[in-house]
Amino acid sequence: MSRQGTRGVDPRKVNGELFTLTYGALVAQLLRDYEDDDEVNKQLEKMGYNIGVRLIEDFLARNNSSRCNDFRETAEIISKVGFKMYLGITPVVSNWSPAGDEFSLLIENNPLADFVELPPGHNNLNFSNLLCGVLKGALEMVQMDVDVRFVQDQLKGDNITELRLKFLRRLEDAIPVGED
Amino acid sequence: MSRQGTRGVDPRKVNGELFTLTYGALVAQLLRDYEDDDEVNKQLEKMGYNIGVRLIEDFLARNNSSRCNDFRETAEIISKVGFKMYLGITPVVSNWSPAGDEFSLLIENNPLADFVELPPGHNNLNFSNLLCGVLKGALEMVQMDVDVRFVQDQLKGDNITELRLKFLRRLEDAIPVGED
Repeated sequence: MSRQGTRGVDPRKVNGELFTLTYGALVAQLLRDYEDDDEVNKQLEKMGYNIGVRLIEDFLARNNSSRCNDFRETAEIISKVGFKMYLGITPVVSNWSPAGDEFSLLIENNPLADFVELPPGHNNLNFSNLLCGVLKGALEMVQMDVDVRFVQDQLKGDNITELRLKFLRRLEDAIPVGED
Repeated sequence: MSRQGTRGVDPRKVNGELFTLTYGALVAQLLRDYEDDDEVNKQLEKMGYNIGVRLIEDFLARNNSSRCNDFRETAEIISKVGFKMYLGITPVVSNWSPAGDEFSLLIENNPLADFVELPPGHNNLNFSNLLCGVLKGALEMVQMDVDVRFVQDQLKGDNITELRLKFLRRLEDAIPVGED
């Protein structure tokens, strides 16, 4: 039973509502376990990280994208290929820093949070924090150390959900995925 | 923000691998929390139940299927409409009891368990037990009390994954979903 086995075929799709409800069950379980929002955020990021380092293999196997030339290209690929492929949405890339090392992904209909309402008293919970971990883990596997965090969230009453990505440094030591 | 809002449009799809990894994170968290396999099975079923009672609303809103005439019709709808719509697979309906009150769903490529290996020492874990709860919860909302359990599981070395559904009784008291 090898992961490679299904790589040639179309990726399986599952229903978004089932995904959302399953993810909601995961967050609810973590809230029961840790109570403290910051700890739940940390756990979600950690889980996401572990998912990201696995998902990137699948991503690279399915896309013949060559290495990105700059962070702007990375941003486009994340939005138009990554998000599109895994969550069926294309966030708007926006709010570039003058130095070109920071941008935002603006998400209008976050599939992880569809129809979700934050439970009362959990104002520090970043419900979709798994996403930060997924992006961080996946980018690390292609030698990019990137800080990823939510700066706005519709669940908290903001007009939009905004993920901020900041390029920190290029990782040189690891063996690139797919080249071993 | 009403659930009804998206009912008219195509259901959103997400990538199966992302779903599988997210579900895996949920099971792993429960294993950390409870250690005992039976307790984890119970929790997964409970979570699934809560998902099922919500998913059935979505299901009924998207399908104009009239009330099933008998359990055989129910079996067909579960396999060919329900599983197809939410997980992208169509389990084989099989192994009917002579009385027509029990059947099996044979699942060849269980999306919840794609590429999963049971952690050592967890032979009693029904990894995909969420499914039992989803089916039980959904069927209860259409006035059917049904026992749902795994009798074979490829994760445990069986040749096929087999879910067994046994009709227990018709529930008469509840107000049918969608008729309130």
